Amino acid sequence: MYLEQINQAGDIKKLKGEELTALAQEIREFLIEKISNTGGHLASNLGVVELTMALHLTFNLPEDKIVWDVGHQAYTHKLLTGRREGFDTLRKYGGMSGFPKRKESDCDAFDTGHSSTSISAGLGLVRAREILGGDNYVISVIGDGSLTGGMAYEAMNNAARLKSNFIIVLNDNNMSISENVGGMSNYLGSLRTAEGYLNLKTAVTDSLNRVPVYGEKIVSRIRKTKNGLKQLFIPGMLFENMGLTYLGPVDGHNIGQVMRALEEAKRVEGAVLLHVFTKKGKGYAPAERHPARFHGAEPFDIATGLPKNKRVKANWTDVFSTIMRKMGDRDPKVVAVTAAMEVGTGLKRFHSNFPDRFFDVGIAEEHAVTFAAGLAAAGLKPVVAIYSSFLQRAYDQILHDVCIQNMHVVFAVDRAGLVGSDGETHQGIFDLSFLSTIPNMCIMAPKNKWELSDMMKFAVNYDGPIAVRYPRGEAYDGLQEFRAPIAFGKSEVIYDEEDIVLLAVGSMVKTAEEVRHGLRERGFSCTLVNARFVKPIDKDLIRELAKDHRLFVTMEENVKCGGFGEHVLDYLNEIGSEASLLNISLPDDYIEHGNVEVLKEETGISASIILKKVMAAALGQNPER
Amino acid sequence: MYLEQINQAGDIKKLKGEELTALAQEIREFLIEKISNTGGHLASNLGVVELTMALHLTFNLPEDKIVWDVGHQAYTHKLLTGRREGFDTLRKYGGMSGFPKRKESDCDAFDTGHSSTSISAGLGLVRAREILGGDNYVISVIGDGSLTGGMAYEAMNNAARLKSNFIIVLNDNNMSISENVGGMSNYLGSLRTAEGYLNLKTAVTDSLNRVPVYGEKIVSRIRKTKNGLKQLFIPGMLFENMGLTYLGPVDGHNIGQVMRALEEAKRVEGAVLLHVFTKKGKGYAPAERHPARFHGAEPFDIATGLPKNKRVKANWTDVFSTIMRKMGDRDPKVVAVTAAMEVGTGLKRFHSNFPDRFFDVGIAEEHAVTFAAGLAAAGLKPVVAIYSSFLQRAYDQILHDVCIQNMHVVFAVDRAGLVGSDGETHQGIFDLSFLSTIPNMCIMAPKNKWELSDMMKFAVNYDGPIAVRYPRGEAYDGLQEFRAPIAFGKSEVIYDEEDIVLLAVGSMVKTAEEVRHGLRERGFSCTLVNARFVKPIDKDLIRELAKDHRLFVTMEENVKCGGFGEHVLDYLNEIGSEASLLNISLPDDYIEHGNVEVLKEETGISASIILKKVMAAALGQNPER
Repeated sequence: MYLEQINQAGDIKKLKGEELTALAQEIREFLIEKISNTGGHLASNLGVVELTMALHLTFNLPEDKIVWDVGHQAYTHKLLTGRREGFDTLRKYGGMSGFPKRKESDCDAFDTGHSSTSISAGLGLVRAREILGGDNYVISVIGDGSLTGGMAYEAMNNAARLKSNFIIVLNDNNMSISENVGGMSNYLGSLRTAEGYLNLKTAVTDSLNRVPVYGEKIVSRIRKTKNGLKQLFIPGMLFENMGLTYLGPVDGHNIGQVMRALEEAKRVEGAVLLHVFTKKGKGYAPAERHPARFHGAEPFDIATGLPKNKRVKANWTDVFSTIMRKMGDRDPKVVAVTAAMEVGTGLKRFHSNFPDRFFDVGIAEEHAVTFAAGLAAAGLKPVVAIYSSFLQRAYDQILHDVCIQNMHVVFAVDRAGLVGSDGETHQGIFDLSFLSTIPNMCIMAPKNKWELSDMMKFAVNYDGPIAVRYPRGEAYDGLQEFRAPIAFGKSEVIYDEEDIVLLAVGSMVKTAEEVRHGLRERGFSCTLVNARFVKPIDKDLIRELAKDHRLFVTMEENVKCGGFGEHVLDYLNEIGSEASLLNISLPDDYIEHGNVEVLKEETGISASIILKKVMAAALGQNPER
Repeated sequence: MYLEQINQAGDIKKLKGEELTALAQEIREFLIEKISNTGGHLASNLGVVELTMALHLTFNLPEDKIVWDVGHQAYTHKLLTGRREGFDTLRKYGGMSGFPKRKESDCDAFDTGHSSTSISAGLGLVRAREILGGDNYVISVIGDGSLTGGMAYEAMNNAARLKSNFIIVLNDNNMSISENVGGMSNYLGSLRTAEGYLNLKTAVTDSLNRVPVYGEKIVSRIRKTKNGLKQLFIPGMLFENMGLTYLGPVDGHNIGQVMRALEEAKRVEGAVLLHVFTKKGKGYAPAERHPARFHGAEPFDIATGLPKNKRVKANWTDVFSTIMRKMGDRDPKVVAVTAAMEVGTGLKRFHSNFPDRFFDVGIAEEHAVTFAAGLAAAGLKPVVAIYSSFLQRAYDQILHDVCIQNMHVVFAVDRAGLVGSDGETHQGIFDLSFLSTIPNMCIMAPKNKWELSDMMKFAVNYDGPIAVRYPRGEAYDGLQEFRAPIAFGKSEVIYDEEDIVLLAVGSMVKTAEEVRHGLRERGFSCTLVNARFVKPIDKDLIRELAKDHRLFVTMEENVKCGGFGEHVLDYLNEIGSEASLLNISLPDDYIEHGNVEVLKEETGISASIILKKVMAAALGQNPER
């Protein structure tokens, strides 16, 4: 077993020829075996086994810096830098992260998680090398999917000015998480058909030097030929036009070919883009067939590729998916926008049913939102479905393009709250805060699956910017007897007593019910309110409740800073209420990967911890004092 | 006078030939005359007089939709749509906006202000036309500067898939506000040298049809020729490769030529980019010579081009400029990053003195921030100078690329607070809120010009993400006797009394001093604290103050929602303080254009209004109840 000989960066260089082929095979088996148990990003990692090996064979880590875009393809990199043991605790609380982490290894040059950042970060490392002196290489590895994000283009535009070496490896598997989209994708596809180019070039270079130039006429003639022909012989012109040197395309599963190309890339004085073709899921048939399903995989059976844990209940995304299809049927003005997350956000059915009213814009959240504002300006009802942590990308577009004009754009904010194993970069714990800062915005959160449907219907029939945020995972199907119609800005009183009021947002209503149960067992009288609206808060109700409740407990799966609780407190202060407020929310910090239930315990928002805090507050022993 | 005959959209179509030439001249004179009095965007508007006329002659407004990128070039458009009278109140409170506003005219298809949004919005209008039916044209007019923003690229990537007409006019003046940067700019520059292309094409088209194709060899030979030659005969290949049809380049000051090209563009089934060359400041010599200075101009003397109101005192940007030069001298690790705002942010001197340590990345705030994170990862000390409202663009990059890794990136947040005449899109009134939501971030605001210097020095010697926010305009030079050293997280007690405490952030310290003066005249005892740190707040001091003060008055030039005051209140609540809090801040709303002093009065944060509010609160007559 060669894999066991790899215990630190550089160890791979002791292997040669067939040994490397065998190592690649071992790595694939290792990853499939481990991820089938822990879950994790499989398809993307299987696609870059040889590419990563070639990088490690060519460069010296940690001196040379590899920046992995998104970072969900860094498992082989982790294996080659002494983190084999970590795969047993992959993505578990306290265990190894599924993404590059500087704090985990000095071979991780830059933390990533969101898309399209690697060229920017790599360019920073290059410019710093120029200023501070140094002869290390910097390599940014970016997928073709990430290239649909404008930030990558901003960075390439700047990299064009470089005079010193900067290697951008374009890992082209013709996929985002779903199939890739847009003009750039078509362009790369045309290069894909030109795979023979490098060989052709070698073969004909000499003879070409003897061909006379027929001058303007012929050059103009070329312009008239079909695009395909031009691409065939001028691959990478788009990148060359932007000022990068283009190399490739090469077969990313051929270690020798990639290494030769990397050596060529090292000699370029400036930014060079090396175009590498890989296959997502390579070497594991189920993942090759269903790369989207094996993007972020739950534990699965290796023989069949089927998930080990069968889902019984619908998750929140399923509920959204169903209501979107229904609303699409009923209202021809409803259209859907996703940023490369057709499957993840549950819009596949909407796409199938209403292909002309579905838009996957690529990993381009900024464009997605302003595009939706344009759709709304013309009278459509766009629903923009973006995960909470990715919506952060479009803060200015929501504020500047949607909300100033009070456009009726509906935001379906999936994965809001703790998401678990993806960790810091993917927790959706800021949306209530950053969306609240935006004037004209309305924010809702459903307590259970029926309410998600009701809120989506409300949102589509509203007139103005409006967001519905809901968590990852299984949709809560309790409290179904409480289904009062949604009314703008109005909360739902579930149990009306006195003394203590639990005022809970979305996913925390379920928790609040458990807390209330515990409080009543201990003799407390307790009102339970489902906030429903985070913005605007239900001032009328709060003012009423303040009359016969001495303690408000706000509960939200969001950071405290700028969240719901602070706004309730602000209103209580504004009306001069004597009631005190206990704010249950996430700490003002990043929250690492781990099981959601574990994370709730660790961050103090589990029912049992909240119960203790509420009792202490009710008895006047505020534990935070 | 032809201009007087233009009273609504379409009126221009009554004019012909020489009359149009005369109208262009009248428009220029009108704009120079008006803007010399009111101030406003001059150079960009003078550059598009003929282009705008050609658009209005070719299309039917309001049916056809023109989306102006940024929107600071829409003055001629406003003139041609019946808003001549509005120029007397341009950018004044209650008067005409300097940007397109749907609420101002049905000929304004989409509000803009920030850069690079027009293609996204236009594409939304096009897709809506496809879905709803309709035969109107959609035209997005975007500058080459705006093309450095990645969002424009995201939108072009999506526009490539269109089957119906969408006209993108690339208004190429080879400038952002400052000179344009990057690979795309070089590329456009190479097309500029190919201005004769269209004529050439016409001349040789026929004969070319008879030229045989010499096959692979010649095509490959072409690849070997110099870039310049390729550009000369294959202009716009970059755009064509992306899937857009490219037309041009044409002379943007030749109305007939632009109109012919627009007619050609109308026939394209899909997205077409029409490349138009214009000259920023065209027709007014001082603006042609100094387009950056006449980008957003203060009132000026027409004969000389010099500002009417001579500045005597330094403004905040000047102070920042000076300290940056000094810090650059002292510490070779200090580097500066700007997003196309070298002059605006005061980095011109730093650039001159340390050209290798200065980076203008184009209008690319996302890249700017992550690039800075890369610089910091390698051990440099980047100072990223971006206006408050534009920093909104990089919310996720600050949160995801800088702060998770706790990178030492310094944010110099200029134009924070009310900026005045640019209005809604440019007010810097959200930064305290959105930056506060980000873990690990430290936020400061200086009371006067010396403190800005001290804070910048502190920030550069700090270790972690840190922002210093300061307003537009004249730097406050009072309170100079108070200059205690900056200590992390510590506020500065300026006057220590009891009963009422005014806890003011940055620009509001000056106001707070006036308020305190008024309070003391009326017999109140009043402590004055300069908060200095908005995050973290000075909990120790607040806890101490809570012992002998019954009323806290927080004061900030930021929206209330998620701002400083809410965080102070949260802490007072946490410690169970009995003190009440009066939150002086901006309303949770967009604030239109107008003189800053007028806006402060209107939004209730002027000293006189605050004084009344504080007295009412101190006397127990909370006016907000």
